[in-house]
Amino acid sequence: MISLRELPHAFQGNEVPYGSSQTKRLTVPGAEEVLHKRFEVFDHGFVGLVDYMGGDEAVVQAARVSYGKGTKSVSEDRGLLRYLMRHRHTTPFEMVEFKWHMSMPIFVARQWIRHRTANVNEVSYRYSKPEDKLYVPHPGFIQLQSVTNHQGRSGESVSPDLVARVIELISDQNTRGMNAYNEMTNKGIARELARVGLPVGIYTQWYWKNDLHNTLRFLSLRMDPHAQKEIRTYANVMAAVLQRAVPHVWEAFEDYDLNAFSISAPEQLVVQDLLLGKPFHKAITLLPKRERREFLAKWRATRNRKPRT
Amino acid sequence: MISLRELPHAFQGNEVPYGSSQTKRLTVPGAEEVLHKRFEVFDHGFVGLVDYMGGDEAVVQAARVSYGKGTKSVSEDRGLLRYLMRHRHTTPFEMVEFKWHMSMPIFVARQWIRHRTANVNEVSYRYSKPEDKLYVPHPGFIQLQSVTNHQGRSGESVSPDLVARVIELISDQNTRGMNAYNEMTNKGIARELARVGLPVGIYTQWYWKNDLHNTLRFLSLRMDPHAQKEIRTYANVMAAVLQRAVPHVWEAFEDYDLNAFSISAPEQLVVQDLLLGKPFHKAITLLPKRERREFLAKWRATRNRKPRT
Amino acid sequence: MISLRELPHAFQGNEVPYGSSQTKRLTVPGAEEVLHKRFEVFDHGFVGLVDYMGGDEAVVQAARVSYGKGTKSVSEDRGLLRYLMRHRHTTPFEMVEFKWHMSMPIFVARQWIRHRTANVNEVSYRYSKPEDKLYVPHPGFIQLQSVTNHQGRSGESVSPDLVARVIELISDQNTRGMNAYNEMTNKGIARELARVGLPVGIYTQWYWKNDLHNTLRFLSLRMDPHAQKEIRTYANVMAAVLQRAVPHVWEAFEDYDLNAFSISAPEQLVVQDLLLGKPFHKAITLLPKRERREFLAKWRATRNRKPRT
Amino acid sequence: MISLRELPHAFQGNEVPYGSSQTKRLTVPGAEEVLHKRFEVFDHGFVGLVDYMGGDEAVVQAARVSYGKGTKSVSEDRGLLRYLMRHRHTTPFEMVEFKWHMSMPIFVARQWIRHRTANVNEVSYRYSKPEDKLYVPHPGFIQLQSVTNHQGRSGESVSPDLVARVIELISDQNTRGMNAYNEMTNKGIARELARVGLPVGIYTQWYWKNDLHNTLRFLSLRMDPHAQKEIRTYANVMAAVLQRAVPHVWEAFEDYDLNAFSISAPEQLVVQDLLLGKPFHKAITLLPKRERREFLAKWRATRNRKPRT
Repeated sequence: MISLRELPHAFQGNEVPYGSSQTKRLTVPGAEEVLHKRFEVFDHGFVGLVDYMGGDEAVVQAARVSYGKGTKSVSEDRGLLRYLMRHRHTTPFEMVEFKWHMSMPIFVARQWIRHRTANVNEVSYRYSKPEDKLYVPHPGFIQLQSVTNHQGRSGESVSPDLVARVIELISDQNTRGMNAYNEMTNKGIARELARVGLPVGIYTQWYWKNDLHNTLRFLSLRMDPHAQKEIRTYANVMAAVLQRAVPHVWEAFEDYDLNAFSISAPEQLVVQDLLLGKPFHKAITLLPKRERREFLAKWRATRNRKPRT
Repeated sequence: MISLRELPHAFQGNEVPYGSSQTKRLTVPGAEEVLHKRFEVFDHGFVGLVDYMGGDEAVVQAARVSYGKGTKSVSEDRGLLRYLMRHRHTTPFEMVEFKWHMSMPIFVARQWIRHRTANVNEVSYRYSKPEDKLYVPHPGFIQLQSVTNHQGRSGESVSPDLVARVIELISDQNTRGMNAYNEMTNKGIARELARVGLPVGIYTQWYWKNDLHNTLRFLSLRMDPHAQKEIRTYANVMAAVLQRAVPHVWEAFEDYDLNAFSISAPEQLVVQDLLLGKPFHKAITLLPKRERREFLAKWRATRNRKPRT
Repeated sequence: MISLRELPHAFQGNEVPYGSSQTKRLTVPGAEEVLHKRFEVFDHGFVGLVDYMGGDEAVVQAARVSYGKGTKSVSEDRGLLRYLMRHRHTTPFEMVEFKWHMSMPIFVARQWIRHRTANVNEVSYRYSKPEDKLYVPHPGFIQLQSVTNHQGRSGESVSPDLVARVIELISDQNTRGMNAYNEMTNKGIARELARVGLPVGIYTQWYWKNDLHNTLRFLSLRMDPHAQKEIRTYANVMAAVLQRAVPHVWEAFEDYDLNAFSISAPEQLVVQDLLLGKPFHKAITLLPKRERREFLAKWRATRNRKPRT
Repeated sequence: MISLRELPHAFQGNEVPYGSSQTKRLTVPGAEEVLHKRFEVFDHGFVGLVDYMGGDEAVVQAARVSYGKGTKSVSEDRGLLRYLMRHRHTTPFEMVEFKWHMSMPIFVARQWIRHRTANVNEVSYRYSKPEDKLYVPHPGFIQLQSVTNHQGRSGESVSPDLVARVIELISDQNTRGMNAYNEMTNKGIARELARVGLPVGIYTQWYWKNDLHNTLRFLSLRMDPHAQKEIRTYANVMAAVLQRAVPHVWEAFEDYDLNAFSISAPEQLVVQDLLLGKPFHKAITLLPKRERREFLAKWRATRNRKPRT
């Protein structure tokens, strides 16, 4: 579905000239490596980092201004980054900025745009004609409504016949949508009007710029299993890019945010009872039913985790 | 198209109980009058003010804390409001808050959501099934692409045949979209997936809460003739509501923002030459061609304006 | 130090007329009770809720628009609030708004203003003359620099002599500051200039308006033991007010945020080992030294906690 | 007062290593030229650009994604930039980011921090000891309170005796403040407490990062003659830096924002009457007295302006 291989030509259209500029700015080798590479997502989507400002070092530098101290050794810097992440000192992470060029279906863009700190320039279909690119889900993505999770998929596969029918229905709606659009605009109807019958699966594209802290907030919420599978796929691609661009921050983010979880006040009492030797089926009664399930699910997810080496 | 008549029953579903509460808060008669009234927009949309905090007086009160002075007479207060608006003292206008319940087509919601200071809770079509409400433009709204304005309509009406065809194409796409959606969800397909073929003309709804300053920014941009006719219609309804809720602020907003315009540095030289008696066709040559048209258009718009009495 | 008794006259200056207005808005009895009451903080500071919009019910209402369902029973509503808080569904909490009138020393205001979502109108000392109100710490607040916490106090009391000397030094600086200011302004020097020698302990005042979600973020960070004792005192007063204004939200906030803590990925492995019966001194070695201390401190804090009844 | 000469050594402390990195990012020659140069402001302050992302071209690129068109010639690009600025298309200007290292007195920092979109890391005087750097105004800055402008200086110079006395009073307060601070911290008193007697003229420092659009908003308000002379001085230094970093944007900003002004609805009627030949003293009566003065002042400011060549 999602291919992380890099396109042979880096950045279609060459909007940004690049190659051999000399700069006095902080340069991050890992970021340079992924810069201007476009990663395919789904049938027509893509994600590409197109500019960056700062990296691990810029976070450390910003924190040190608060503490009034100079640069230290690399291992002290890594320790400081981890300390900041652990203790919710978020402002130093705002000192790093990333700019992305992306394309995704409108229904994904609508979830994405709710993250309000980002700067966004999106293609306007009042102004330009959409390309004939509409999202048709990959067969593996077509699933039944979950019974327990009112906003998600069951995770189970469906019959090949049903898969085929879903693809047919969506493709048909897409084709008719574009045909109707083309007929209307060919007859001179205003683009801003002709588009109202186009499906929310139509692709849009934008530049999306955000600081590192808020980009990690975005990922924390959108890499979560409760996020819709489509936006999660985009978030995962961004994660792979950031892992190279800010490796130490990323490691801290995994340990203290992405793979961490919160223990509520009631849950703390359960853990205390467990540590004091109370049997599980008794200790757990301190929680209401729904929270029991959540408590178990949190710990179960850690079961196969290994210490970072 | 847009009906400002009030619905006989105020607020469908009675989510907010109201009627006879006593409060120690500042209460604004004009706001109370329009509160919980739902104004119809287009075929299925609506706009309704569902809560407010503060009014003209709250702006004045906030400004006076800066200047360290107590309340004055009503006419002094009005003068202060006008002074604040004229001189871009925006923070006192942020002290007033409005909460709206609205429903609009998705393509309108997508323009709206770009105003990032608002708080928004929108219906989720991952979670609930959309009602069978899809936007079909009123015949009078169906127009050709403008030649001069790349993102708008020409303003001229089109042949009845073409109007009929546009309505047919959009209605057909809507009907098929809902049919496909229903078939998929009846077969158990997840809602978040079944909706990808639905058109961007489908109605959504949300609570939208924002402070007065940023609500006026929204209106300043979305009541503008360059905004799409559909969102302009919504903006006009909100304007009618605000006019009653904050009458003095609204008056100042009209005089110093909505009906004001900016004179660029080059345009100032043109006006000076005109005042010195230079003939128009000579004075105007100080501007590049495109700006000449804009200069004329600005002044032409004021032609029939009368002094506020 | 901080007196929660209410002033006999509610809101000095009566900026906001109140008493017997009738309103169609949602009215919250607990909020009405504390409205327009000014709570003293320190020698000259105060905190008072001066307006509000919405309450527990407004959060539920906003969440239900997302899920497309009507109002339920009170116990279902409480459950929904707790669910939202537990799962970081933050936007419904943004639908409630509070406006406060407060006065605090400038060094406290400088920490406070870093919370960027708030709307603020502060007295301007370019425009008005400061009152002769300067912060002198209560003897119990005067403590030595902490050795372990580079940004805080040790918690231990100091000798009466040293306390007296600190109070003398600060009072002297305050008196001289005001005297110099008065001499300069009496001679006609501009206020914006005369104030540059005034201490950061001088009191300022402002209106501060924010939504509930971001107010809770503020409290989560500023009620934390790492926050400076002075701003913590203000945060505690606000907490006491909010507890009455949004009782169900507050309860959920205590359980899932204020008294909850995060278990990092490495810490999860430690807890698993402990539950499997590994002795504590062995299990803990999975963590670096600094994190061992933090791990212990988190659990120790829960020791005397009792289940909510 | 403010010296724009560059320090021989670029960036004290060399926090950011630089010199010869190769990058694939868009590089802006004018920005590279001023990067890592520290410009002195007043007795102890400074402003220095320490990182940037994008430039004129990045604004154009972002706008073209909306309009769906590729890059054009330089003169078309300049025209587009000017069009965007003129028509309040602000989002493309948000695609460029600047990071600054600055030091200024606390009372200036307090005005500055009100611009809420910026990312800031400031030195913490809970954590580190302030250097003995306190603002003493340059003699030329010492002026009387303005009579017409309640928040500013008269612009007239004062007697040498009064200047000397002001400097003496402020210097004395500064010296005593640092002495008291040192005595307290030498005796072990916590830094966060010892600082409450320090004057608001004490220097602080921070990293300040913001996008271009919001940086221009900052400058538009803080280069204004109504802003306090001290922050205006800082704004002017930043302006000189930006003029080299984004020359085409800067030119458009000057023409359509900084040197432009708004003509209110009532003022438009006055101009129309003037153009129709009505004598000035009659036309002006359409405005209330205060607005007459403002109307005159606006036009007077343009008197000596020459067309851009």
